[in-house]
Amino acid sequence: MRTPAQNAELALLLEVAGTPKPGNVDRHRDFPDLRFEHFLAGAVGASEGLGAAAAGTPVGEAFETAVAGMADQRGGNTQFGALLLLVPLVRAAGEGDLSPDGVASVVESTTVADAAGFYRAFDHVDVFVDDPPADAGDLDARRGSDAIPAVEERGLTLADLMAMSAPEDDNAVEWTNGFPRTFAVADQIAGGDGPVLDRIADAFLTQQADYPDSLVAKQHGSAVAEEVASRAAELRDGGAETAAIDAFGDDLVDRGLNPGTTADIVAAGTFVALERDEVVV
Amino acid sequence: MRTPAQNAELALLLEVAGTPKPGNVDRHRDFPDLRFEHFLAGAVGASEGLGAAAAGTPVGEAFETAVAGMADQRGGNTQFGALLLLVPLVRAAGEGDLSPDGVASVVESTTVADAAGFYRAFDHVDVFVDDPPADAGDLDARRGSDAIPAVEERGLTLADLMAMSAPEDDNAVEWTNGFPRTFAVADQIAGGDGPVLDRIADAFLTQQADYPDSLVAKQHGSAVAEEVASRAAELRDGGAETAAIDAFGDDLVDRGLNPGTTADIVAAGTFVALERDEVVV
Repeated sequence: MRTPAQNAELALLLEVAGTPKPGNVDRHRDFPDLRFEHFLAGAVGASEGLGAAAAGTPVGEAFETAVAGMADQRGGNTQFGALLLLVPLVRAAGEGDLSPDGVASVVESTTVADAAGFYRAFDHVDVFVDDPPADAGDLDARRGSDAIPAVEERGLTLADLMAMSAPEDDNAVEWTNGFPRTFAVADQIAGGDGPVLDRIADAFLTQQADYPDSLVAKQHGSAVAEEVASRAAELRDGGAETAAIDAFGDDLVDRGLNPGTTADIVAAGTFVALERDEVVV
Repeated sequence: MRTPAQNAELALLLEVAGTPKPGNVDRHRDFPDLRFEHFLAGAVGASEGLGAAAAGTPVGEAFETAVAGMADQRGGNTQFGALLLLVPLVRAAGEGDLSPDGVASVVESTTVADAAGFYRAFDHVDVFVDDPPADAGDLDARRGSDAIPAVEERGLTLADLMAMSAPEDDNAVEWTNGFPRTFAVADQIAGGDGPVLDRIADAFLTQQADYPDSLVAKQHGSAVAEEVASRAAELRDGGAETAAIDAFGDDLVDRGLNPGTTADIVAAGTFVALERDEVVV
């Protein structure tokens, strides 16, 4: 019987192993400087923070611990977004209510100290830069823990920060709205056929088709994100073969399009399916 | 900074991800009923027992806990032999002396209770059968915990049992002789080039070439095990391409030849290299 923290770690491992996942590192694809083994090490490194989340450590502190452990490999930011989703879900599971209401309650109970932990987490990954651009706002993530005084002055909780980020970050939308895509992914995996890695790949393509990836949109503009979603929808609706999906992935990689938010949400949904015993490995 | 238990878990993950590893499940190969994800879940499940080993729980008890956690997936016995090697190595690391002498000292200090824990571990995997064959000795592993009275009557420690098994089990040879192949694998990985998964695959082929696999020998006879080693040596010495190594692996799989002991020792050596910071992921 795995603990919630172990199921979260396993979800990170299964997510990266699922293939094909167009545009991302997976069982059959590495990038030159971001390889499969970086995700394996990231998942193992996150385990302490995930355990802390289950045991009742404040969400922001547990998240910072998880990210610090995750970052102890040379690939950089492998699973920051996935951990942002997993930490409140693991807490909800630890409290015995892994449901939209249960995780919403975790979100609502976050504090200014949790927001500070969230910013401290950025110090461990390469989002943080010593000299943010001149136009960076005082809450810009690139400031890392240097943003904490502004957070404290305004009295912003982590839930407040997520609500502010929601217009351009679909992980923040999950936080703000009871994790609807996460629970939908869990349902799809639970209702799927065959080995769990195939179910994960199917869930990834569904999410990719139905929601333009917010990381792609942030990095390359919303028109590009919508084009990617539209092509994913064609492949899914046409029952495409693996080779066609692989070719789509090759094109995304060639263009530097990395649908990271989609992967984060699939990892979170995989956790929910595992923790509810809706899928057996 | 990963703990010894985390490095052991990561070693299990990296070992199964290394490819090509002729005859075994790896990043690019599944068997029909034993798939990559079973090894991912086995590694995560083993973490509690590995942590116990580092913290000073008796070796036999820590091993049983690790095996029970590992077995919580549908692939069956994924990493029993690797854990048998890892538990004393993790203990030695926890005691601050991860060396041939340090692990030999752990082995020498094992007790009859540790031997009992070893037999109880068999109850969690499919080696254990309700009715062992009539010719099974009273220490036959297939008896699982039913063998414990005979172990206790004879006052056998776990080190004694390993010494008795050494003639036909190369994991037991490691236990008995200061883990020489394990430390050689660590040295090869430390001295290798390129990504860690490639180094692991190279170390696997070297071990496969230099030592007929004792699991293959037990299941198919020593002539077959020697033939496999000889073909591995030709591929290694000829600097074979991946395609030729893959074809060799296809043949082994078609014939049901699974070099499990070789994989166990490579996982153990990967742990040593990680724990000594001789390879960075």
